[in-house]
Amino acid sequence: MCGTYKVVVTKSSMTCSDHQAPDSNGSTPNHRLDVRTNGVAPYHHHPQPIVSLDHGDPTMYEAYWKKVGQRCSVTMSGFQSLSYFGDGKTLCWFMEKKLEDEIRKMHKVAGNAVVDGRHIVVGTGSSQLILAALYALAYTLDIPNPVDVVSAAPYYSSYPEMIEFVRTGLFKWSGDARCFDKDVPYIEFVTSPNNPDGSTREAVVMNRGELGLLVHDLAYYWPQYTAITSPADHDLMLFTASKCTGHAGSRIGWAVVRDENVARKMVKFIEMNTIGVSKEAQLRSASVMELISLSCQKRKPCDVENFFDYSQRAMEERWRRLRDVVNNSQLFSLPKFPEHYCNFRREIVQTYPAFAWMKCKEGIDGERLLREHKIGTRSGRRFGCEAEFVRISMLSRDEDFDLFLHRLSTIQPTASANGNQN
Amino acid sequence: MCGTYKVVVTKSSMTCSDHQAPDSNGSTPNHRLDVRTNGVAPYHHHPQPIVSLDHGDPTMYEAYWKKVGQRCSVTMSGFQSLSYFGDGKTLCWFMEKKLEDEIRKMHKVAGNAVVDGRHIVVGTGSSQLILAALYALAYTLDIPNPVDVVSAAPYYSSYPEMIEFVRTGLFKWSGDARCFDKDVPYIEFVTSPNNPDGSTREAVVMNRGELGLLVHDLAYYWPQYTAITSPADHDLMLFTASKCTGHAGSRIGWAVVRDENVARKMVKFIEMNTIGVSKEAQLRSASVMELISLSCQKRKPCDVENFFDYSQRAMEERWRRLRDVVNNSQLFSLPKFPEHYCNFRREIVQTYPAFAWMKCKEGIDGERLLREHKIGTRSGRRFGCEAEFVRISMLSRDEDFDLFLHRLSTIQPTASANGNQN
Repeated sequence: MCGTYKVVVTKSSMTCSDHQAPDSNGSTPNHRLDVRTNGVAPYHHHPQPIVSLDHGDPTMYEAYWKKVGQRCSVTMSGFQSLSYFGDGKTLCWFMEKKLEDEIRKMHKVAGNAVVDGRHIVVGTGSSQLILAALYALAYTLDIPNPVDVVSAAPYYSSYPEMIEFVRTGLFKWSGDARCFDKDVPYIEFVTSPNNPDGSTREAVVMNRGELGLLVHDLAYYWPQYTAITSPADHDLMLFTASKCTGHAGSRIGWAVVRDENVARKMVKFIEMNTIGVSKEAQLRSASVMELISLSCQKRKPCDVENFFDYSQRAMEERWRRLRDVVNNSQLFSLPKFPEHYCNFRREIVQTYPAFAWMKCKEGIDGERLLREHKIGTRSGRRFGCEAEFVRISMLSRDEDFDLFLHRLSTIQPTASANGNQN
Repeated sequence: MCGTYKVVVTKSSMTCSDHQAPDSNGSTPNHRLDVRTNGVAPYHHHPQPIVSLDHGDPTMYEAYWKKVGQRCSVTMSGFQSLSYFGDGKTLCWFMEKKLEDEIRKMHKVAGNAVVDGRHIVVGTGSSQLILAALYALAYTLDIPNPVDVVSAAPYYSSYPEMIEFVRTGLFKWSGDARCFDKDVPYIEFVTSPNNPDGSTREAVVMNRGELGLLVHDLAYYWPQYTAITSPADHDLMLFTASKCTGHAGSRIGWAVVRDENVARKMVKFIEMNTIGVSKEAQLRSASVMELISLSCQKRKPCDVENFFDYSQRAMEERWRRLRDVVNNSQLFSLPKFPEHYCNFRREIVQTYPAFAWMKCKEGIDGERLLREHKIGTRSGRRFGCEAEFVRISMLSRDEDFDLFLHRLSTIQPTASANGNQN
C-alpha cells in the first residue's frame, strides 16, 4: 500500500549549501553551517552537508550575469542618494524615476502586464508588498472584523506565515480559498504561475459579487517560466526582481496598481514599515532591467544573449534532466503542464516552473525522505497539502542542482523497507 | 495673554522643497510639488513654496560626501549579491560581513556603544528595527494581552504612528512613560539624545522590577550631536545610517543586542517582513562607514577631514545662527543644554541636536504660524506635547536652512494681531 525504498548511500564532495531558508518556518538553526555555494567544497568540515533547495534562491542566473560582466554595473558615490526621497514625481515618493521607467519598459518588452495608466509602487521585495497590499485593502474595506485572506491550496507557504506572524486585527489567514464559503468581504491571493506547483491560476472563490478583493501575485509570470499568453490586467499585481532577474539580494519588488487610493495606502504602509526602499537597490535593479530589455532587442547595442532565451533554455534543460531522473524512479512523480502559445517567444512553449512540486508515493513523508538523503526541500504541509509533496527549488547554482539530481537518483524503493515515514 | 505677531511678507526665489514627510501623519498630499532641493530655483512654477523641515532628511551632509568624491564609491556588477543570504556567519543570515565589521569598527572609533560580545542585526532603516524590537520583545514576553509600549513625552512621533498602524494584538501604544503606572510588563523606548528635543535621557518608568523591557533608540548618539560621555551599554540599542552618516536613502539601520534569543526573533521579524535587507545598501553603507572610521585616524591614508569634526562644526554654525534669530525674536524660544566632556573630542562640548524643538509664545499654534510663513515643521502635538512646540529639522541643505532662517526672522509679534491660532 505504501511506497517502499532503500537507502543508497551517496558519497560526494561536491559543493553544497545548508543555509537557513529565507522563508522558513521559523525553525532557525542555532548555528549556520560554515559552508557556501561558492564552488569550494567544504566536505572536509561537513561531510555530506545538505543541498538546500528549500527556498527559491535564484543563484542559477549568476552565470548569465557573469557573462554580461560590467555592462550593467552601477557605481554609487558617497554623495548620491542621501535623501529619503526618490527623484520621481509619482505618489510613490521614495521611488527612483529610472526604476519606474525600466519596470514599465521591461513589462512592455515581455508583454506580461498592462502598465499604462497604472501606478507603480516599489517595495523591499515582494514580501513587503504582500503585507502592503493586505494592509491597504483591509484599511480600504474598513470593516470591524479582520478580513479573511485566502488562497487556493497548494498556496505559497509565506502567506499564512507572514499573516499569522503580525497578529493584526485588520486581516487573518483563512486557508484554502476553495473551502471559503462565508458571505463576508475577503482577500484572495491568486498566484500565477503558482508557487509551489507552477500551475496557471485564476480566482477560485466564486459568486461572491463585490465582496472579494484580489491580489495577483505574478512573481513567476515571465517568459523563462511559462507562456506569456496576454498582458495581465488585474487591479493589484505583484512582481519581484528575485524571480524575474535573479537578484534576490537586492530586495526589490513592485506592485502595479489600478486604484490610486489603494496605491497611496500601500505607500503609506511602506512609509510606516521602512520609510521607503533602498536607493542603491533601486538603481542597480533599474540597470539590470535596462540590460534585460536591451538584450531582447533584435538589434542590440551590445553583444549579450536575450535574457529570457538564456534563462528559458536553462530551465528547460534542468526540467528535462529532473524528469529523466523522476521517470526512472518508482517513488516520485511530477506535474505535467499544458503547452501554450507564448506571445513573447512567438511559439508554442512548455512550462518550466521555478519550483518542482514533487509527489512521493503515498504514505511517504517526502521532506523527511529527501532530508535523509541530504536534500533540503519544503514539505507539502507548509503549502496546505499532504506530506507526500515537497517543493524543490529549480533555481540553485549548477553544482547544487547536479548534486541534487545525483542524490535523488540514488533513492530507490525496496520491498524490504517500510515506506511509511509518518 | 496670548502672543501676537504680524506677518511680514517674504519674497524669495531661493531653492526650496515641499516633499511629503517620510514619517508624516498620513496626510499624504494629492500631488507632490514639482520642486526639488537640488539648487535650481523652481520659483517660476511655485512662487514661495514651503521650505520643508518637517522631516529629518539629512541632506546637510551631502557637501562633505561631495568633497570625499569617489573615495568611498561602490561599484556593483550584475553578477554580485544575487542571493538572499549575506556572506557573514552570524545569526543575522542576510547581513554582509563587511557591514558588520564596519559597524563594529565605527562604534569603537566613536566610543559610543559597547559592541564586543553583542549581536548585530541589520535592518531596512531603524524603522524596521523599531518594529522588529517590539515584535521580538512581545513574543519573548508571551503574555495574553498586548504589551504596553511607552516613551516619555515629547516622544518620537513615529512610535505611536507605527504601532497604531499595524494594529497588532502583540503590543499597543500607551503614551507618555511618565504617566505609566500599571503593574504589568511593558516596553519603554528611551531615545537619547531625544527626538524631538535633543535631551539626554534615561528610562523614566521606575520601580517596576523585572516588568520593564527597554529599547534604547540611540540614532543621535554620535559626536556631531552630543558629547559621547561613555560607551552605551544596554540590552537593545538601535542606530541608523540616516542620522550618523547622512545616508537616509540607503535605509540601513542596525541593532546591538545582548540576548541571542531576542536577536534571533528580530531576525525572524525581518525575514517575515522583507526577507532581509538590500545587499547594495549594506555594501555602500559599509564603504561609507569605513571612510568615516579612516577619517578619524590621526594618520589618514587619504586627505579627508574627520567626518565628526566637519559635521559638528556644521551643526554648531547652524545652531549659532538659529539662536541668533530666535534671540532677536519675541515669539520663539529654544531649549538650552548642559555641556559635557566628550570622550571622542577630548574636550567639553555643547549639544547640537538634529532637530530644533522650538516653543512659540503661549497660545500660538507653532506649526500653523510657521506654515503661514512657508516653513514646514511638525507640531508638538505629534510628540505628545502642546501645539506651541514645533520640531524643525536642522539637517537640510544649506539653501533650505538659509531660507528658513530668513523667513523665521521676518515673523514678528504685533499688538494689533491676535496670536491665538488655535
